Amino acid sequence: MEVTNIKAYGTRAAEAPLNQLDINRRKPTPHDIEIDILYCGVCHSDLHTARNEWHGTLYPCVPGHEIVGKVKSVGDHVTRFKLGDLVGVGCMVDSCRECQYCQEGLEQYCEPGNTGTYSSPDKHLPGNPTFGGYSESIVVDENYVLRVPENLDLAATAPLLCAGITTYSPLRHWNVGPGKKVGIVGIGGLGHMGIKLAKAMGAHVVAFTTSQSKFEEAKRLGADEVVLSKDPEQMAAYRGKLHFMLDAVSAEHDVNAYLALLRVDGSLALVGAPEHPLPIAAFSVIMGRKSFAGSAIGGIAETQEMLDFCSKHNITSDIELINIQQINEAYERLLKGDVKYRFVIDMASLKG
Amino acid sequence: MEVTNIKAYGTRAAEAPLNQLDINRRKPTPHDIEIDILYCGVCHSDLHTARNEWHGTLYPCVPGHEIVGKVKSVGDHVTRFKLGDLVGVGCMVDSCRECQYCQEGLEQYCEPGNTGTYSSPDKHLPGNPTFGGYSESIVVDENYVLRVPENLDLAATAPLLCAGITTYSPLRHWNVGPGKKVGIVGIGGLGHMGIKLAKAMGAHVVAFTTSQSKFEEAKRLGADEVVLSKDPEQMAAYRGKLHFMLDAVSAEHDVNAYLALLRVDGSLALVGAPEHPLPIAAFSVIMGRKSFAGSAIGGIAETQEMLDFCSKHNITSDIELINIQQINEAYERLLKGDVKYRFVIDMASLKG
Repeated sequence: MEVTNIKAYGTRAAEAPLNQLDINRRKPTPHDIEIDILYCGVCHSDLHTARNEWHGTLYPCVPGHEIVGKVKSVGDHVTRFKLGDLVGVGCMVDSCRECQYCQEGLEQYCEPGNTGTYSSPDKHLPGNPTFGGYSESIVVDENYVLRVPENLDLAATAPLLCAGITTYSPLRHWNVGPGKKVGIVGIGGLGHMGIKLAKAMGAHVVAFTTSQSKFEEAKRLGADEVVLSKDPEQMAAYRGKLHFMLDAVSAEHDVNAYLALLRVDGSLALVGAPEHPLPIAAFSVIMGRKSFAGSAIGGIAETQEMLDFCSKHNITSDIELINIQQINEAYERLLKGDVKYRFVIDMASLKG
Repeated sequence: MEVTNIKAYGTRAAEAPLNQLDINRRKPTPHDIEIDILYCGVCHSDLHTARNEWHGTLYPCVPGHEIVGKVKSVGDHVTRFKLGDLVGVGCMVDSCRECQYCQEGLEQYCEPGNTGTYSSPDKHLPGNPTFGGYSESIVVDENYVLRVPENLDLAATAPLLCAGITTYSPLRHWNVGPGKKVGIVGIGGLGHMGIKLAKAMGAHVVAFTTSQSKFEEAKRLGADEVVLSKDPEQMAAYRGKLHFMLDAVSAEHDVNAYLALLRVDGSLALVGAPEHPLPIAAFSVIMGRKSFAGSAIGGIAETQEMLDFCSKHNITSDIELINIQQINEAYERLLKGDVKYRFVIDMASLKG
């Protein structure tokens, strides 16, 4: 298969910092789209994968799955996109397309497993991993490419491809909308999107934070109420009151304290990924028939639905724009939670 | 309020064995039914409460919430029962009747809390706890009394009032029926009912046990397949295959191993009550949008529905009939799991 050599940013080992390297991209096949990458969001998964913290990372590793760009070329059979279109790529670039979950638009739960945007075996270039968005360009089958709305700030749109859909999908799945009281736990990259989206869906949004200093922020983002989660008295006032909770915390935390706030038949959906298992008391779920659930990104059609929803409601991520050369420093700040609320890389910096 | 003094079996302290004692029952008020108790099942909760293992036990404690008996007298305004009727009483004898959950027939999740059949403050006899079924008779508001079918073995019907409804309710709530593959984890007092009920609902039932010796038993009870849960190879064969799992294990166990067997959007509902919190890995629920849920008994209307279902399908519990004088020994055997599958007390032994 013919390839093109391009510039990227990545690492060859878990312990090494990211730096510039050359990678090969396949030349577009008939169903492919070649995308000139403009912006790429920085997701905590990028860091976990680059450092092999979830194990199984394929090196060299070029992270990045919040990609916004412009169509540079299209394969002969491409029908849905044309040169110059604004497009996005999220966490996956392919799936089996045949299992029942793919058929139902749940490609994120593809039975044999989907192809991750980075660090998955590349079907087209056997022996190579897929390479993500910290790069000049990417080649993706048109079925896994999203249409990016014209009315949104492009850089701030990039994080919608992962942080946006990761929060949008469970809010939709658990029927968040008017008349529902919804808790959003954690005000970070995911949580701040959760607040904006739940509010735009018409729910009454209660944000939970460990930090009094985030109260004003949470309200600015759209929260109707804010609760200091380490204050038992404030927590007790919400006991049995919430229809649904979105838990966007990646650090260790006591889920039982939040399950207590759910109404009968309520669900708490985890979208953060704490490293260690979370201890859940039997009575936390037995009393009130509650559910501790989880959710991963969203399907392709639902991701498009989310982008269209964001376009309509003028929702993007709050971001801090960086150059690719600042990525290692950004990772360190990410570890400290020192970002409001998502780093986005201006990929022009790689070309310069 | 006028009271009657009757014989019962109970304990005055967590450390003391159960022995005979006298208790007061109120004389039936206009909406009450006085029930001559024929049989009372022995639930693990009885032991937990008698020994104050869940804390908050009110002494003296007379356990027993799987009660089958005959109507001995009725209050003036009772409309639903008459003298001589076969009736049952389960885990609750009252609730607020006003909260939204009571209004919806979910009295088990009554917002201010329902009145437990034993060890709850007795509204009618202030300062006294309610006393359960290890006694000659009980007086209960007719709205919390169930009609017991005539075609079932009476002693074997008693455990339906707790073990039966505890398994029936989640199986119904999570839509178990034809075309569904359902896992039942643990083959004990609850689990053996789960197998029988899920099978009668038309599901394909897969039983999970830690003991090869229970394979034949599980099949006799109705399981289509049996899996040795400590054999990783047998477990792996069911990965992603089950629509729903009922987890009836009260001991510590690895829930993650079972969550892995659920299909996308599957739920595992815990009905056992392990003492310590269960560690659940984020990815166990995130991958496949799965739920770790719980469920407690069922509402009054649903309990009646369950009894009628059991009548129609000729389902009762497998029991070992004992005299009340054997209760302390039965508790010791219960702790060792040495019962197939439920002790039921022949209450005639108390009168003799």
